[in-house]
Amino acid sequence: MAALASREIRLKSRPVGEPGPDAFELATAEAREPGPGEVQVRNRWMSVDPYMRGRMYDVPSYVPPFQIGEPLQGGAVGEVTASGDEGFKPGDLVMSMWGWREAFTAPAGTVQKVDAHGLPPQALLGVAGMPGMTAYVGLLKIAGAKEGDTVFVSAAAGAVGQVVCQIAKLKGCTVIGTAGGAEKVAYLREIGVDHAIDYRTAGDLTAALQQAAPKGIDVYFDNVGGDHLQAAIAAARPFARFAICGMISQYNATAPTPGPTNMAMSIGKRLRIEGFIVSDHNDVQAQFLADVAGWLREGKLVARETVDEGIEAAPGAFVKLFRGENLGKMLVKL
Amino acid sequence: MAALASREIRLKSRPVGEPGPDAFELATAEAREPGPGEVQVRNRWMSVDPYMRGRMYDVPSYVPPFQIGEPLQGGAVGEVTASGDEGFKPGDLVMSMWGWREAFTAPAGTVQKVDAHGLPPQALLGVAGMPGMTAYVGLLKIAGAKEGDTVFVSAAAGAVGQVVCQIAKLKGCTVIGTAGGAEKVAYLREIGVDHAIDYRTAGDLTAALQQAAPKGIDVYFDNVGGDHLQAAIAAARPFARFAICGMISQYNATAPTPGPTNMAMSIGKRLRIEGFIVSDHNDVQAQFLADVAGWLREGKLVARETVDEGIEAAPGAFVKLFRGENLGKMLVKL
Repeated sequence: MAALASREIRLKSRPVGEPGPDAFELATAEAREPGPGEVQVRNRWMSVDPYMRGRMYDVPSYVPPFQIGEPLQGGAVGEVTASGDEGFKPGDLVMSMWGWREAFTAPAGTVQKVDAHGLPPQALLGVAGMPGMTAYVGLLKIAGAKEGDTVFVSAAAGAVGQVVCQIAKLKGCTVIGTAGGAEKVAYLREIGVDHAIDYRTAGDLTAALQQAAPKGIDVYFDNVGGDHLQAAIAAARPFARFAICGMISQYNATAPTPGPTNMAMSIGKRLRIEGFIVSDHNDVQAQFLADVAGWLREGKLVARETVDEGIEAAPGAFVKLFRGENLGKMLVKL
Repeated sequence: MAALASREIRLKSRPVGEPGPDAFELATAEAREPGPGEVQVRNRWMSVDPYMRGRMYDVPSYVPPFQIGEPLQGGAVGEVTASGDEGFKPGDLVMSMWGWREAFTAPAGTVQKVDAHGLPPQALLGVAGMPGMTAYVGLLKIAGAKEGDTVFVSAAAGAVGQVVCQIAKLKGCTVIGTAGGAEKVAYLREIGVDHAIDYRTAGDLTAALQQAAPKGIDVYFDNVGGDHLQAAIAAARPFARFAICGMISQYNATAPTPGPTNMAMSIGKRLRIEGFIVSDHNDVQAQFLADVAGWLREGKLVARETVDEGIEAAPGAFVKLFRGENLGKMLVKL
């Protein structure tokens, strides 16, 4: 057992708009020898997620804001390097929320021993982890998608969207997805999306969606907000269900962003628009893991990743999310 | 049995913005002697409802649009004057959707014999009818209001709002209501509303609502849309439920109306925003009638009306709805 040198990314200042270099600081730290009941962990993969932008604002929310001078918290997968707790031994694969650090020492109760079930370990941060379960919960539990539904998914080639599209296809839905750029659109077709819309070249998104779904949509899985939400309301069939998962178009906004001008349609169409947070739905986690592991094994579900390397790449990887430069799950490999 | 002279209000042109005199035409017609299986009815009370504005647009919706040159359809209560159907006799009280006519002759199956249960007959168009049931369904079934909830109601002194406020109080909720003008605000206090906000003088509605509900709201019953919806989203507590019943601020809009700029809050707050139409919920009608009749008998529920007289008053009465000039249910007495 020995202390490990570690570098970490700290929040240096609260960003206004798209986070620039001033928002982050690369600092040197140390993961000390673990004391009794502690584990020392070397992270291998770090998750880079859009929701982290919300925690950079100093406002109360469902999770507390990041603190200036502290490392950014987020999901990571690593290996135990030393243990003072009888439940862990070196080499154990663990998931933690200690965030953007190369290594750390922490109470054993704050990390979770995980079994990758033959998957690459980073899948636990993506398709078999929080983003995958977000897709599963939002599509099946919140929106109640069922066979025959027409499902519209925004940011369909993202970490969550790609899983939503494929689960919807597995359930017998017609799927319409939006993404930015030819590569993502080609990927959507590859994973079976019936109508892939490139929102950057589509012009009027409401018209493009109505063309793709002339009979309307039954479900909307929202990762984007803004014009995507407006188009979905316009295209919704009676009793359509919207799972509001994210609004990445708005997270960096420095002024109020225009809301949907057609909210009144929610009455005649009896729309149900529901926001959700995956961590409220741990009751379905076992079922999610069983289903997703099965689909992955059978080759019915695939998941792309965009991987940047080295802890110093994390801030840049984070900004890629808002520029739409990631295909699938955005990860940093350490 | 004889034909009855009748006058009726027809849609003359589809209004743009607030319906002016050009939109309506007072025409003379006749309610002929009823043939076999028909009834002849003289209307006594006509309902004037905001949702009728939507039917003046030539767009598909949950009810077909009004046709130019045809009488406006809407609820009315009248008396059978002659009957060719064995199920009806002169003097029977009937409800119909034949609309803004002094009298009509129609198949017996298109009118409904009703018992006013000792209430004045026009109550069947208000508190004991569609608006009352809209309040009941929206508050209890859609929003699931329960004891201890803080409930925000817009257009709280209107036909629906006044019933929402009182049912919410009966269920043990704290109630915040908005209305325009001192008379309505005084009425809201009279019926037990805990915080009555005059939206015309309140300035920033979001600030006013947050002051009235410093701990936030659990339920929003929306009759107005626009800035009221925006304020409700801002004030919502986690897992708040919104029943979207109407958006009277937008029915006459000639350009897209700004939507709520804070829709992204629906995620972290896990809001459920749901539009509804009362006619989808006939399963609760018997329970509604039993509850409301009981509350009315026991004096636990009161309902105001604004009454204009004569069929020629109907277009003006209709416009009052959008100017907020009605207190409680807007009716035309024939």
